[in-house]
Amino acid sequence: MKNKFTEDTIAAVATPSGTGAISVIRVSGPQTFDALDSIFVGKGRIAEADSHTIHYGKIRNKSGTEIDDVLISVFKNPHSYTGEDVVEISTHGNAIITKKILEILLGENVRLAEPGEFTRRAFLNNRIDLAQAEAVADIINSRTEVSLLGARNQLDGFLSKKVEELRSMLINASSFVELELDFAEEDIELINQKELMERINKILREIDKLLSSYTFGKVIRDGVNVALVGKPNVGKSSLLNYLLKESRAIVSHIPGTTRDIIREDVSIDGILFRLFDTAGIRTSHDEIEKEGVVRSREAVKNADLVLFMNDVEQGFSEEIYNELRSLTKEERIISVLNKIDKNGKSKVRKDISISAKTGEGIESLFNLLKEKSLGTSSYSEKSAVVSNLRHYECLKKAKESLLNALESIKNKLSGEFISVDLRNAENNLAEIIGAVTSDDILNNIFTKFCIGK
Amino acid sequence: MKNKFTEDTIAAVATPSGTGAISVIRVSGPQTFDALDSIFVGKGRIAEADSHTIHYGKIRNKSGTEIDDVLISVFKNPHSYTGEDVVEISTHGNAIITKKILEILLGENVRLAEPGEFTRRAFLNNRIDLAQAEAVADIINSRTEVSLLGARNQLDGFLSKKVEELRSMLINASSFVELELDFAEEDIELINQKELMERINKILREIDKLLSSYTFGKVIRDGVNVALVGKPNVGKSSLLNYLLKESRAIVSHIPGTTRDIIREDVSIDGILFRLFDTAGIRTSHDEIEKEGVVRSREAVKNADLVLFMNDVEQGFSEEIYNELRSLTKEERIISVLNKIDKNGKSKVRKDISISAKTGEGIESLFNLLKEKSLGTSSYSEKSAVVSNLRHYECLKKAKESLLNALESIKNKLSGEFISVDLRNAENNLAEIIGAVTSDDILNNIFTKFCIGK
Repeated sequence: MKNKFTEDTIAAVATPSGTGAISVIRVSGPQTFDALDSIFVGKGRIAEADSHTIHYGKIRNKSGTEIDDVLISVFKNPHSYTGEDVVEISTHGNAIITKKILEILLGENVRLAEPGEFTRRAFLNNRIDLAQAEAVADIINSRTEVSLLGARNQLDGFLSKKVEELRSMLINASSFVELELDFAEEDIELINQKELMERINKILREIDKLLSSYTFGKVIRDGVNVALVGKPNVGKSSLLNYLLKESRAIVSHIPGTTRDIIREDVSIDGILFRLFDTAGIRTSHDEIEKEGVVRSREAVKNADLVLFMNDVEQGFSEEIYNELRSLTKEERIISVLNKIDKNGKSKVRKDISISAKTGEGIESLFNLLKEKSLGTSSYSEKSAVVSNLRHYECLKKAKESLLNALESIKNKLSGEFISVDLRNAENNLAEIIGAVTSDDILNNIFTKFCIGK
Repeated sequence: MKNKFTEDTIAAVATPSGTGAISVIRVSGPQTFDALDSIFVGKGRIAEADSHTIHYGKIRNKSGTEIDDVLISVFKNPHSYTGEDVVEISTHGNAIITKKILEILLGENVRLAEPGEFTRRAFLNNRIDLAQAEAVADIINSRTEVSLLGARNQLDGFLSKKVEELRSMLINASSFVELELDFAEEDIELINQKELMERINKILREIDKLLSSYTFGKVIRDGVNVALVGKPNVGKSSLLNYLLKESRAIVSHIPGTTRDIIREDVSIDGILFRLFDTAGIRTSHDEIEKEGVVRSREAVKNADLVLFMNDVEQGFSEEIYNELRSLTKEERIISVLNKIDKNGKSKVRKDISISAKTGEGIESLFNLLKEKSLGTSSYSEKSAVVSNLRHYECLKKAKESLLNALESIKNKLSGEFISVDLRNAENNLAEIIGAVTSDDILNNIFTKFCIGK
C-alpha cells in the first residue's frame, strides 16, 4: 500500500500569512527536484545542485508567464528537515504570489501538505522522535520566554534521553525475567527477587521525579489560570490594571462584553498568567446577571488559583469564601486584602495585604503567585521536564504497570505475569518518544500543528 | 562623513509577523559575518563559508543560552540582494525567538533596519534602479493578479529600459547642440534645426505614449474607486451582494457602522474595484444623517466612477442626477437601471439595464466598468507602462522642457537656451530611474516600504 506520508511530494507556505518582505514555500518528497526543474528557470538544474546551496532564478507557469524571481534553497535527502529531498522557495512576501506558485506546483505531482506533515515526516524518517516533534509545535506556540526554554529543552532531547534511559533499564530487567522463563523447568535463578524489586523501584523513583515535574512543566508550557473574585468596589479592576502596567511583559488584552468575563494575560518573570475578572459568584434573579454568575462559577472551577479580594473597608466576606470553597480546593484560594493605604478594619483575615493604588505588597503577591503555581521547583535548562499531558499520562501508566509488577513479585506470581507488566511499562515509555505508536496518536498530535511545519 | 546607508550593518525580520513554521531575519552590511560568527555555533565559521550556501547551527546569547536552532543562508558581496555581505537567518516561526535574536545582534555592531533600507541599499549599490526599487514595494502590496503583473513588468525593467532609451536619444541630440555652442564663432552647423526638431518630436511622441499608459497603469496598480448612489430600495445592496458573489475573486469585506460608508473590494478580471455604498447625498436635518450625507458626497467626489442606480418602479431621479453632476464629471457617471425583471416604467433614462436579482445585464456592467476604467488600452506584459504618480510627474516635466526647447528653436533663440531645456528634460527622465536623485526623494520612497525589505 502506498504510504501518503512518505511517498507523496508535499508543499505549503511556511511563513506566517500577511504582507512582508519575503515568504517561503516548503516542498518535500521524492518529486521535489523534478517539480522544481519544470517551473524554475535559473543557471542550472535544481536536481543537479549540491545540497545546502542557494539558486537565483524565476518561477514560470506553463504558458511562460513569469510569477516571481525567487531564491531556491536545496536540501538533499537525508540532510533536510524531513529527511527527504526538500527545497525552500523564497519569494516576495505577497499572498497572491505564494498562492500562484502553489497552484503551479500542484500541476507537477505535488500536493498541499496537511498541518504538521513536514514534522510528521521528520519523525517517520527518524530525524527526530515524537517528543521532539511535539516540542516543535510548542516552540512555535510559546507565548513567553520561559515556555520557549521549556520547549527548547524538550526539542534538545532532555526528556527523550531520560525516557530512553529508563526504557533500557526496564528492558534489561525484563530480559532477566524472560530468560528465567526459558529456563523455568531447570529452576535457575538469574536474578534474585530482591534485586529485581530494587531495579523496579529505582525506575519508579525516576518516573515519580518526572511526574512531579509536570506541575512545573505544565505551568511553563500552558500558563496559569487565575480567577479574580470579590464584592464590587474591593478593587479588582484596579489590581488588574496595576498588574497589566507592572507585569514585565503585557501579552495581550482580551476584551469582553459586559456579560462576558474579562480576561487579561500578563507575563510575570516569563510565566503566563491568565487573569479572569469574574462578575460575581452569588446567585441572582436578574436574567443577565444569572448568566454572569454561571460563567463566573465556571471560571472559579477551572482556575488553577483564585485571588479572593477583600478590602479594609468592607472586611472579609465569609459568605463568598464559603461559596468559593464549594467550587474549588481551599489551597487554591489566595485571600488578598486590598486598600491597606486607607484606614479601616485592621484585623481582617488574609494571606497577603496589598494596595492596588500605591503598589504596596504587589511584589509579594507576584512571588506568592509564582510560588503557588510552581511549587518549590525551579527551572533548570539541562534536566528533563514533563510539560505535555500525553507524556504525563504515559508515565502514569508506566508507573501503574511497574506497581503491578512489584505486586506480582510480592505475591510470588509466575514470571509470566511480571514479564507482561514490565513489557507494558516499557511500551508506555516507548509511546512518549514514538518508538511504538499508532496512526491515531500521530493524527491527534500533528493535526494540531500549523500548515507548513 | 559616514554614510549610514552603506556603512552600518542592519537587521530586521523579513517575514510577516505572526505564527508560522519559520521566520527569517535578514542582516546586511560589512559587519554581517563577524556579527554572525559571535552568536552562531555551527560546523564552521560563516565568514569562511562560500556564497549561496546554507549552514545549520544554533544561535546562543552571551551567557551561552541557546535561543534556537537555525539555518544560515550566506550571500557574499556583491552577489546579494543589497550588494553587501548578507545572511538570512531562518528560525522557528515565533516572535519571541526573532525578537531575542535581534536583541543579541544589536550587541554585535548591528542596528535595526529602517523601512525599505535593504532595497534602498540595493539601489545605492546599483543592484537595481529607482523605478525597479519602487516596483519591489508594488509587488509586495499588490492585491490582484493584474497589479502584480504590472509591478513585475516594472521590476523586470521595461519602463527603465524605455526611459534609458529616451534619455540616450536626448543626450545624443543635446550633444550636437552643445558642440555647436563650442564652435559658435566659426558658425558651423552640425545638425540642422529641422532634424533637431524631428528628433525632439520623436522623443515627445514616446513620452506621450508613456503618459497615456498612466490611466491604465494607475488602474492596474491602485484599482478603481466606485461610488454607489441611489434612492433607498433601488437595490444598491442587492447589486453589491451580487457583485461580491459573482466577482472572480472576492478581495475583502470592510464592514462599516450605519453611519459609515460600507466598502466592499471586488476583483473583476484582476482589476480591483473599491465599491462605496453611499447612504444618500441629499441634504438632511437629522444630525446623524447630515454626517452621512457629508461622507457620501466626499465619496462621490473621490470616486473614479459613480454607479447611479434607479429602478423601473421609481424611475430616473433627475434630482439626484443633478446633485451628482455638481459633484463630479458627467462622464464618470454610469446610470444603471435595476429590477428589469419586474414590470414598471419602460422608458427610463439609463446607460445600462440590469437585474441584480436574476443577474441579467451584470456581465455587461462588468464590461462597462472595465471599459470606463481602462479605456481601450489592454495589458501587454512586454511593454513599458507608467503606474506610479512620481514617474508620471517626471514625464510631464520632461515633456514641458522639450516643448520649451521646440519653442526656443522656433524663435531662433541661442543654442544655450535649447541646451538648458534639453538638459532639464534629461534630468527629469534620470529622476525616474534614480540616475539623479536627492535624499528627500529617496526618503519619501523608502519610508513607505515595510521593515525587512
